[in-house]
Amino acid sequence: MLSLKHVAINSFNENIAYLHKDCDTYKIDDIRDVTKVEIHGGPVPVYAFLEIVDDETIVSPGELGLNNEAFLRLNLPEGANVSLSLAGLPPSAGILQRKIAGNILSSSEYSSVVKDIVAGRYSNMDIASFLVASGSFMTASEVLSLTEALIGDDVIRWDDENIVVDHHCLGGIPGNKTDIIITAIVAAYGLPMPKTASRSLTSCAGVADTFAVLANVEADEAKLKKLIKENRGAIVDYNTLPIANASKIVSSVERALGISQQQHIVSSILAIKLAAGVTHLVLDIPVGPSSRIKSTAEAMRIRKLVEYVGDMLSIEIDAVITDGSEPIGNGIGAVLEARDVMRILRNKEEAPQDLLEKSLFLAGRILEFDPKLRGGQGYHVAKEILSSGRALETMNRIIYAQGKAPQAQIGHLTRDIVSSRAGVVESIDNHQINKIGVLAGASQYPGAGLDLLKKVGDFVEPGETLYRIHSVSASDFAFANSYADGDSGYEISSKR
Amino acid sequence: MLSLKHVAINSFNENIAYLHKDCDTYKIDDIRDVTKVEIHGGPVPVYAFLEIVDDETIVSPGELGLNNEAFLRLNLPEGANVSLSLAGLPPSAGILQRKIAGNILSSSEYSSVVKDIVAGRYSNMDIASFLVASGSFMTASEVLSLTEALIGDDVIRWDDENIVVDHHCLGGIPGNKTDIIITAIVAAYGLPMPKTASRSLTSCAGVADTFAVLANVEADEAKLKKLIKENRGAIVDYNTLPIANASKIVSSVERALGISQQQHIVSSILAIKLAAGVTHLVLDIPVGPSSRIKSTAEAMRIRKLVEYVGDMLSIEIDAVITDGSEPIGNGIGAVLEARDVMRILRNKEEAPQDLLEKSLFLAGRILEFDPKLRGGQGYHVAKEILSSGRALETMNRIIYAQGKAPQAQIGHLTRDIVSSRAGVVESIDNHQINKIGVLAGASQYPGAGLDLLKKVGDFVEPGETLYRIHSVSASDFAFANSYADGDSGYEISSKR
Repeated sequence: MLSLKHVAINSFNENIAYLHKDCDTYKIDDIRDVTKVEIHGGPVPVYAFLEIVDDETIVSPGELGLNNEAFLRLNLPEGANVSLSLAGLPPSAGILQRKIAGNILSSSEYSSVVKDIVAGRYSNMDIASFLVASGSFMTASEVLSLTEALIGDDVIRWDDENIVVDHHCLGGIPGNKTDIIITAIVAAYGLPMPKTASRSLTSCAGVADTFAVLANVEADEAKLKKLIKENRGAIVDYNTLPIANASKIVSSVERALGISQQQHIVSSILAIKLAAGVTHLVLDIPVGPSSRIKSTAEAMRIRKLVEYVGDMLSIEIDAVITDGSEPIGNGIGAVLEARDVMRILRNKEEAPQDLLEKSLFLAGRILEFDPKLRGGQGYHVAKEILSSGRALETMNRIIYAQGKAPQAQIGHLTRDIVSSRAGVVESIDNHQINKIGVLAGASQYPGAGLDLLKKVGDFVEPGETLYRIHSVSASDFAFANSYADGDSGYEISSKR
Repeated sequence: MLSLKHVAINSFNENIAYLHKDCDTYKIDDIRDVTKVEIHGGPVPVYAFLEIVDDETIVSPGELGLNNEAFLRLNLPEGANVSLSLAGLPPSAGILQRKIAGNILSSSEYSSVVKDIVAGRYSNMDIASFLVASGSFMTASEVLSLTEALIGDDVIRWDDENIVVDHHCLGGIPGNKTDIIITAIVAAYGLPMPKTASRSLTSCAGVADTFAVLANVEADEAKLKKLIKENRGAIVDYNTLPIANASKIVSSVERALGISQQQHIVSSILAIKLAAGVTHLVLDIPVGPSSRIKSTAEAMRIRKLVEYVGDMLSIEIDAVITDGSEPIGNGIGAVLEARDVMRILRNKEEAPQDLLEKSLFLAGRILEFDPKLRGGQGYHVAKEILSSGRALETMNRIIYAQGKAPQAQIGHLTRDIVSSRAGVVESIDNHQINKIGVLAGASQYPGAGLDLLKKVGDFVEPGETLYRIHSVSASDFAFANSYADGDSGYEISSKR
C-alpha cells in the first residue's frame, strides 16, 4: 500500500502516476518502458502512465503521486491508501486493433471505444491511433455510429422550443466569422440560436476566440438557457459546457497531432450540435483550391454524408456549398475579425462586403427553417434586420448578458506587405495566409493577425499594401515577416 | 528568459517541460490544451510537451523545469537562461500527414521521419500515428526504405570476420527459446554469433528475459566484441547497445499501444541485425492458427518480403517456415524456459524434445552458412555438438564471460490446471496460454509463468494435470487462476 499524494501538475487530459525510484512496494527496476498502471483504492480503478521520480519533494518512496487529471478521477483525499497493478489493455483494445487492421466497426464497438476514452482508459497515444486508423477508412454507417457515440449521455433539452437552430462552417477559410453576425440576425428575428463555438484548432482564431474579444464566452447549461430565454441568441465556447466530452478529448488530440480528418469533423460537429439540443442546422461547406475541401465533388460527398447522418439522428441539415477560394472579410485574427463583425453590425461603409453578403445569405437559410417564412424571403428579412440596426441592438444585448469583455488591443508591431508590381490580385492562398497569421501570433494573442487591404480582383500599384501584419511579440513578428517575404500568399497578374 | 531546472522525472522517451501557472514571461492562461513547445538556449532547440505546475517546490514562476529526457537533450546546466516558443510541427509533419492520407512515401521521406523521431521531435503520440498510418499500408519498397532509415548511423563492424550469423523468430509462440541453444551450438562450432535479443514486448518472456536468468545480458559494443572474440557467441539485450535507436523508440511505442504490425517487425528486426553487423540470418516464421502468422500463404508473403529487403541491403537471409501450432518446450516464463534450455544443453532425459529438435534444425541451417560445410550436414553436426557436451561447455563459458546471474527462483504460488475428462490433447491455444502466463506475472517476475506437462497428442486421464501455474504475487495468481478456469487454452478430444 502507498500513500496518495496530489502532484499539482496539469498534463492536459493525460493521467500520470509518479512513483519514487526507491519505492519498496513495487519493483521499479523492472520498468524500462512506457507503462500503463491501474490505481486501486477509489470507487473505480484509474488508468495512468507511470513516471519515475528521483526527488523526494515530489514523491517519497512510500507515496504514489497523481497529477491533477488522475487525482480528480480517483477522487480520494491525500494520504489515502492506494495500490497499483500493471494495467491490462483497455476493454476495447481488441476493437481498436480490429480498426487498425482495416475492419468495419459496429455501432456498439464505436460506443465501447468512446466509453473507454471518456473513462480515461485511453492514453492520448491510444486516441491518436484510433483517429489515424479510423480516419483512413470509415463507411457512412460508421460515421453515424461514431457520431451517436460522441453525443454522450448529457443532452441539453429545450422543452419550450419547437426549433433550435445553429450554423457551422466546415472551415479552413481565414477570417470567415459569419457565425457572430448570423447569431445577431437570427436572434433578432426570434429563433433560438445557442451557437456552440470552438477555440482555434489550427487556424488563426476560432469563432469562440473572436467572440471572446467582445464578451465572456464561458457558460454552463443553466447560463446558456438563461441567455437564450432572454435574448434568443448566445455564442459560447462549447468546451465550457458539460456536453460531448469525448468529442473535446478527440479534438484536443487531433489538434496536437496537427491532423483534421473529414469524417471525424463531421461526427464531432454533429455530436456537439445534437448534444446542444439543436434541431435545425445550416452547414457551410466552402470549396476552393486552398480550402479544406478542394472540389465540388468532395463537397457533395460530405453533403450526402451529413444528410444521411442528420436524417438518421433526426436533425434537419441544410448543407450549403459556398465559395472558399479566398479569405472572407479583411481581418484575420480575433481582434481584427471582431472589428469586421462590428463594422457590419453597425452598417459602416468600411465593412467587408464579402463577409456581409455571406452572412446575410446563410442567416437567410436559417430563417427559412421557420415554417411561417415564405421560401426565398430569408435573405431579404435578414438584410432588413441588419440594416435597421436590430441585429446590432440584439448583439449588444447578447454581449451585455454574456458579460462584456475588456477592450482588446490590435498588435502594435506592424509591417505592410506590398505588391512588387502593378496588376490585379489573381488569387490569395488560404493556407499561406493562415500560416503567416499563426506565425504572427494569432493563435496565441488575440491582437495578432493580418489585415487584408486587397482581395481577389482588386487593382494594385507597385508598392501598394496587400496586407498588414500585426504582432504582439517581437519573435512572432520576425517569423511572420520572414515567412511572408518568402511567399506573400498573393498572386498578382500583370494584365490590368 | 527563464532559469533552467532539472525536474528528476523519467517519462520514458517523452520530453516534458514544466512551467509554473503564475509564470510572468509566458501567458499560461492561454494554454488550454496539449501544447508542444520548443526550448531555446542550448545548441539545438528541444521539443517538449508543456505541463502546468501549481507547486513552487517543483518549479517557481521564474523557472522552466525539464524532465530527465528533455534536460539531457538540452544539455545545459541548471540555472542556465532558456526561452521557449510554441513548437511548429516537426519538419516531417507533412510527410506524416501524407502517409495518414494513404500515400506511398519515398526513401528520403522515411529517412526524414526517422530523423525527427531520433531527434526527439516526435511525441509518442506522433509516433503512434506514424505506426498506425504506415502499418495499414506499406509497399515492399517502403519496407526497404523504413529498414534503411531505422539502421541509423552506428553500425558494428566485424573486420576480422567473413560471416557473422544470427537467428530470429518472428514469434508469438510461447516458450520458444531456441535462440539460446542455437547460440551455444553455433559458437561451439566456431561461427561468430552476437545474438541481439529483446525483452518481452507482449509475451511472457523475450529471449533477453530468459537469458537474464542465467547471465548478465547488458553489453556495450566493446564488451560484445570481446565476448565474441573469446567465445564466438554472446546473447545480449540489444536495448543496451547504442545501435538502431529509432527502432527501440518505435518498439517502445508499439508495446505501449499493444500493437505489432508485420511490416514494422520486419523492418525493425532487419535494421537491428544490420546495425549489429550480421551478414547471415536464419529467420524462423512459425505458422499456426494461434501463431502471429496464421497461414502458409501469409508466411510466404513475409518470406518474399524479407528476401527482397535482405537482398537489397546485402544480408543473406534463410527464412524458414516452421510449425507454430502449439507452444514449444514445457516452460513459459523466463525461469521455467531457462530450466528447459539447460536441460537440453545438459542432455537430460526430461528435456523437451520439440524444443530440442527445433533448435537442432535451426542451428543446422545456420551452420550451413559456412561454405566449408556440405549441404544437409548442418543438423547432424549440430546434434553431435550438443550430445558431446561441447554446446554446454561453450554455454558455460558464455555465461561466465557475460557474468553469471544469481540463482533465480520459480514462483512459489502454484496451482495445477487439470483435465476434466479422459482423452487426447487436441490443440493448445498460444494466445490463451500466453495470456494466462502474462496474468500469472511472467512479464513482470522472471519466476512466474506456466509449466506445460501435456502437449498436443498426449493422452490424459480425468484429473490429470495439463499445466501448472506459477506466480510470485497473490493478485497475479488470482487473476491467472480465474482466467484459466474460464478457458484453459487446452482442447481435449474424447476419442482415445
